[in-house]
Amino acid sequence: MSGALLASTVLPLGAKDSKEALQPPSKRVEKNNSPLVSLSDYELQAREELPHMAYEYIACGAGDEITLRWNREALDAIRLNPRVLVDVERIDTSLTLFGQKHRFPLLLAPTAFHRLAHREGEVETAKGASAAQVTFVVSSLSTRRLSDIAGATTQPIWFQFFTLQKERRAFVKDVLQEVKANGCRALVVTVDAPVTGARNRSERARFQLPDDFDTPYYPDRAGRKQSGGLPISGSLVWEDVEWLRSVTDLPILLKGILNPDDAKQAARVGISGIIVSNHGGRELDSVPASISALPRIVDAVENKVPILMDSGVRRGTDILKALALGAKAVLIGRPYLYGLACGGAAGVSNVTDILRKEFDMAMILTGRRTLREIDRSVLF
Amino acid sequence: MSGALLASTVLPLGAKDSKEALQPPSKRVEKNNSPLVSLSDYELQAREELPHMAYEYIACGAGDEITLRWNREALDAIRLNPRVLVDVERIDTSLTLFGQKHRFPLLLAPTAFHRLAHREGEVETAKGASAAQVTFVVSSLSTRRLSDIAGATTQPIWFQFFTLQKERRAFVKDVLQEVKANGCRALVVTVDAPVTGARNRSERARFQLPDDFDTPYYPDRAGRKQSGGLPISGSLVWEDVEWLRSVTDLPILLKGILNPDDAKQAARVGISGIIVSNHGGRELDSVPASISALPRIVDAVENKVPILMDSGVRRGTDILKALALGAKAVLIGRPYLYGLACGGAAGVSNVTDILRKEFDMAMILTGRRTLREIDRSVLF
Amino acid sequence: MSGALLASTVLPLGAKDSKEALQPPSKRVEKNNSPLVSLSDYELQAREELPHMAYEYIACGAGDEITLRWNREALDAIRLNPRVLVDVERIDTSLTLFGQKHRFPLLLAPTAFHRLAHREGEVETAKGASAAQVTFVVSSLSTRRLSDIAGATTQPIWFQFFTLQKERRAFVKDVLQEVKANGCRALVVTVDAPVTGARNRSERARFQLPDDFDTPYYPDRAGRKQSGGLPISGSLVWEDVEWLRSVTDLPILLKGILNPDDAKQAARVGISGIIVSNHGGRELDSVPASISALPRIVDAVENKVPILMDSGVRRGTDILKALALGAKAVLIGRPYLYGLACGGAAGVSNVTDILRKEFDMAMILTGRRTLREIDRSVLF
Amino acid sequence: MSGALLASTVLPLGAKDSKEALQPPSKRVEKNNSPLVSLSDYELQAREELPHMAYEYIACGAGDEITLRWNREALDAIRLNPRVLVDVERIDTSLTLFGQKHRFPLLLAPTAFHRLAHREGEVETAKGASAAQVTFVVSSLSTRRLSDIAGATTQPIWFQFFTLQKERRAFVKDVLQEVKANGCRALVVTVDAPVTGARNRSERARFQLPDDFDTPYYPDRAGRKQSGGLPISGSLVWEDVEWLRSVTDLPILLKGILNPDDAKQAARVGISGIIVSNHGGRELDSVPASISALPRIVDAVENKVPILMDSGVRRGTDILKALALGAKAVLIGRPYLYGLACGGAAGVSNVTDILRKEFDMAMILTGRRTLREIDRSVLF
Repeated sequence: MSGALLASTVLPLGAKDSKEALQPPSKRVEKNNSPLVSLSDYELQAREELPHMAYEYIACGAGDEITLRWNREALDAIRLNPRVLVDVERIDTSLTLFGQKHRFPLLLAPTAFHRLAHREGEVETAKGASAAQVTFVVSSLSTRRLSDIAGATTQPIWFQFFTLQKERRAFVKDVLQEVKANGCRALVVTVDAPVTGARNRSERARFQLPDDFDTPYYPDRAGRKQSGGLPISGSLVWEDVEWLRSVTDLPILLKGILNPDDAKQAARVGISGIIVSNHGGRELDSVPASISALPRIVDAVENKVPILMDSGVRRGTDILKALALGAKAVLIGRPYLYGLACGGAAGVSNVTDILRKEFDMAMILTGRRTLREIDRSVLF
Repeated sequence: MSGALLASTVLPLGAKDSKEALQPPSKRVEKNNSPLVSLSDYELQAREELPHMAYEYIACGAGDEITLRWNREALDAIRLNPRVLVDVERIDTSLTLFGQKHRFPLLLAPTAFHRLAHREGEVETAKGASAAQVTFVVSSLSTRRLSDIAGATTQPIWFQFFTLQKERRAFVKDVLQEVKANGCRALVVTVDAPVTGARNRSERARFQLPDDFDTPYYPDRAGRKQSGGLPISGSLVWEDVEWLRSVTDLPILLKGILNPDDAKQAARVGISGIIVSNHGGRELDSVPASISALPRIVDAVENKVPILMDSGVRRGTDILKALALGAKAVLIGRPYLYGLACGGAAGVSNVTDILRKEFDMAMILTGRRTLREIDRSVLF
Repeated sequence: MSGALLASTVLPLGAKDSKEALQPPSKRVEKNNSPLVSLSDYELQAREELPHMAYEYIACGAGDEITLRWNREALDAIRLNPRVLVDVERIDTSLTLFGQKHRFPLLLAPTAFHRLAHREGEVETAKGASAAQVTFVVSSLSTRRLSDIAGATTQPIWFQFFTLQKERRAFVKDVLQEVKANGCRALVVTVDAPVTGARNRSERARFQLPDDFDTPYYPDRAGRKQSGGLPISGSLVWEDVEWLRSVTDLPILLKGILNPDDAKQAARVGISGIIVSNHGGRELDSVPASISALPRIVDAVENKVPILMDSGVRRGTDILKALALGAKAVLIGRPYLYGLACGGAAGVSNVTDILRKEFDMAMILTGRRTLREIDRSVLF
Repeated sequence: MSGALLASTVLPLGAKDSKEALQPPSKRVEKNNSPLVSLSDYELQAREELPHMAYEYIACGAGDEITLRWNREALDAIRLNPRVLVDVERIDTSLTLFGQKHRFPLLLAPTAFHRLAHREGEVETAKGASAAQVTFVVSSLSTRRLSDIAGATTQPIWFQFFTLQKERRAFVKDVLQEVKANGCRALVVTVDAPVTGARNRSERARFQLPDDFDTPYYPDRAGRKQSGGLPISGSLVWEDVEWLRSVTDLPILLKGILNPDDAKQAARVGISGIIVSNHGGRELDSVPASISALPRIVDAVENKVPILMDSGVRRGTDILKALALGAKAVLIGRPYLYGLACGGAAGVSNVTDILRKEFDMAMILTGRRTLREIDRSVLF
């Protein structure tokens, strides 16, 4: 049934059909006889499922977690201005990015070390992404190889890099070949992490990457150990990004931009897309919520390149709000890791399906039938 | 005595008389030897009285309950600017809506499934409405028939519809006949619920409508079961509302409007009244508080049709604030269900009487003698 | 020593003298071996000392206690802008109101039923006022006679009225004779209480005035019983106040004004002073904090009559803030009742002395030597 | 290694070197097997280590601790606007103040009675300051002599005065000789404490200076005992400061200025520097946060003298924010006392190193390579 839905990405709403359509296709994950019905349910449950050290590593933000809190507060503070009595019998949530069709405007953000959350690591995540028909952006801190990951999903994957500096370029080129061979459709370069933020909760829990974890795309094992397993990209500069452009045809997105001047620079040098992000509040505490930085960046870039956003998305209404402020799509990080911890692939797809269903609701209840109809007029 | 009060809707204030007048006529409901003196007392007590599943269904809001919280916060944030040394010996709280006189500007909003709160369901509510001399708007999700309900109250009732679509119209016409036969004075069409909101608390409590509940005016039993008993109006459009106008002479109010453009459209097509509402925060989380949307709608409609408001009213001062911002009257939902759960008809009338007494106080203590004197000058 | 201080109302600050001067002259009240060093300490302790019913009656505000909270929040939100390196060797906190000299700009507000807090009632309060050298405004809900009260203090007293209506005027005239005979220096008319507010906490605690309490200046025992002992002034109007002016030479202050138009009217009809007050948040919930209403009233009255303020004063800095915004003096209510409950006369004087010491500090630490130097420039 | 770092005050960021550079050189302090990784960890731990009375004396603020809270809230509310893809391979955090080079823009503020926190008192603090290579400003309420303190650190020290009045000047001159002899590089005069604030928590804990504590630079033992050991500077005036200028060549900074007019006056009379401070919220409650007062003072002084700031700094980002708003450097007080209580000299240097590491991160993650690059453009 989910295949049929994807084909059209249109929900029939009339009578019983719509009710059916609004049920997530994946089987519902339950714990202690209680259904997990929202992303916050998954977060609470994941705290039970995960070892303390792993939970703290995943959940923590930088410093006093002010930015982490702002990510939610700023989204929560946005008010919607719904229209009623609109014909929402059929809505279309699909979008096309870099020639690739997406079922609805959500991707799985690159996150590190999935084996912390599930024995099968990124391969299990890919199975969930496949079931939910969303694109999984594989981190260069993956604990599984791309061939295994790509083989586990019917959906195209994307790949993310931290380091592109001269001394790494030979290795990066090797990775690029593997990336191509496995059908990756876009590259993401993380630009906000020259050093790892002050993740105090993680430090207090003495987080260490387990010895038996391979990170094939970030092989500097000694470096990882020394910093508690936490990688840094070091002093990455525009020239490194331009080098990447020169050696690949894949679209390149910069992830971690909050300053409109950086966004303009990215558009100027031919970057394909921008991901407005504060790294889930994990890098520098007291940078603004992504949703607060978004409108300035949208205004600065003037539609030259598509803007995506992550950090703080937990509800279907959050997706609607980001789109209303000019984002083309959003990404989630921690929530699908919590899904992975709670229910493996089913947990990942369930989390995604909850967001999809909530986003459907948000469109229907604000009277918007297509993504094009979602603009600032939907805000109060 | 309440009859005498209704006749004049004027409170004698001098000496002892006024003190008496300020006592609610209905016997006071007490629990655990403690008097229930405010609507929040009833809410706390109802939590004890109701089965968990029913309480969660009634109390919950959509999503993270942000709108639910805003409904209170926005009302609480409004400051009053009282006048003193005004002759408030006699005040008049009465109003006339669509030719019908109301004792004070409050109605009981349409809410679903009263049998969840009391064995006798809507019939018991009607008895309470009768004692308190207020108008009860019966929901199309009533668990009792209109003839029984109307027979239990000396007050006129109103009736509410969710669905008016072509395939339902034959049934709607049948209901309209019953509505007329039972002396209903106005019709309310709910326009903000094409699908049911993400009521997570209710889902977590696995709310299901009990098998033995009849809903004579929403007979799609299969549909109700499938969505946990929660109805949806589906894709209702302006044309459906216009059809209703063509088949009845009763005044029609649209309930669930937050956007001034929808309000203007309603006035344009000849709707008789508007109920500014966010469905008690139960439909789409992060739409604004009703009281925040109210002034824009009042300004847009320019007195062409009367504006009512619900969602969040818990104090007599809330009624005064809504009237100061242009509402003609307000409705309450959950509070009278809590009254129904705590004390049956006496609970319903007590809750209403508490609000009436508080509204009297609010008029007296701001120096307003009639509803006409309540305008924006009463706001600080 | 306190006599010497009063004579000059100047604090020597140099060397040891100033440290001594800053010690309250009255003996410190201690409970459970812990010194009571702030008004909030007294409040916490009074909760232990008083019967639940009495504490709830005294402490409660109206409705949801929003105004009660605002009284503190609005004062707390005001920021000071201190000057340094000012010669504060000697400061003068004294003021003259209606020809009467006050040690510092604080009076004890009229409050009801002191026998709830202390066996000796208002007589004990008067002893504390005497020790602290402040003016006590006796309520017409006093549980002791004026002759006993006035005889217990070396300070002049003031007297407060609720009712002045035609049917009470003969009695009021009798009281006025007693007032004069006992050297009262000013009259206060409470104008914000035609009915008693919705004091839910007090109602929940089933507050009733004990049968053996006399209220010689509010003799309507039946009325008091009926409303739980809570008095109301009924529909008092400007004409009643003007009548009072016609039968006494004493200065008349109106207490409970929040609206600038009422303040202007008061000045116009020859009232001697205005007390900006929301009755300690006990009458109509959601009227503004007194400190929020104060500047508008000061601006409206243009120095024609002195403005006093009560409701929320708990710190010496609060006095400074009220004076900065144009008040001539402030009054406290609950805090001295808590002092009375904790330590009788010593508690009353201690509470007052804490405020005086804190006000001295506030002047010294903002670099203000006289009350005249306290204007809006002391606000950030 | 820390010596090498100081020499350049440049962090190599590439590859492993940068990770090493980001480790604090001092050994990490741990308690109950948990690492202390932030200043708030030290605060929590110090509460365990210190006698209640000492902890309350150190931790408390004045009055209701509103200003204490604002100090943090105002810093937390400031949002950063980072640049990415900047070459941050090497950053320079050094600055020169009054001809003295500082490793990074932080000093240890003058605080009283270090023997409360450690048996060796200020001598132990000096050892920590030496290890962390920061300047320690010794209070005139020091419990150790300058010769012992200066001998314990390789870093220059500064000295702070409370009193300069005529009757103290002979003694001040003696102290100045000792100050000079021990290589002090600057003098700080505290101008915001003519009397001690209402430190209620400290009073409730009955704080008394232990009898065996010497305070060689504040010898008025009787005065100290009388006020619970709390000193006051009395009525210090501009003339006293000018006298100090006339008898020393050392740079003089005024500490405790919040009002731009005082700052202008200081610049006018030839003061060398200003420390914007509210005495850690310990003097007059409800003065603004230092960071809120800072920009006005920076604007008023127009770069005539360097502005420093203290009160509320707990994170490296706080230093960046203060510099962005015009401060040249900041000082910390309580945090290093907590370090002293938890780990002696190692605790002091650890606290300082945590802030240095966090400040390095804040520069790197906002893309700032030198202090000159930190201006208002780093704020969102």
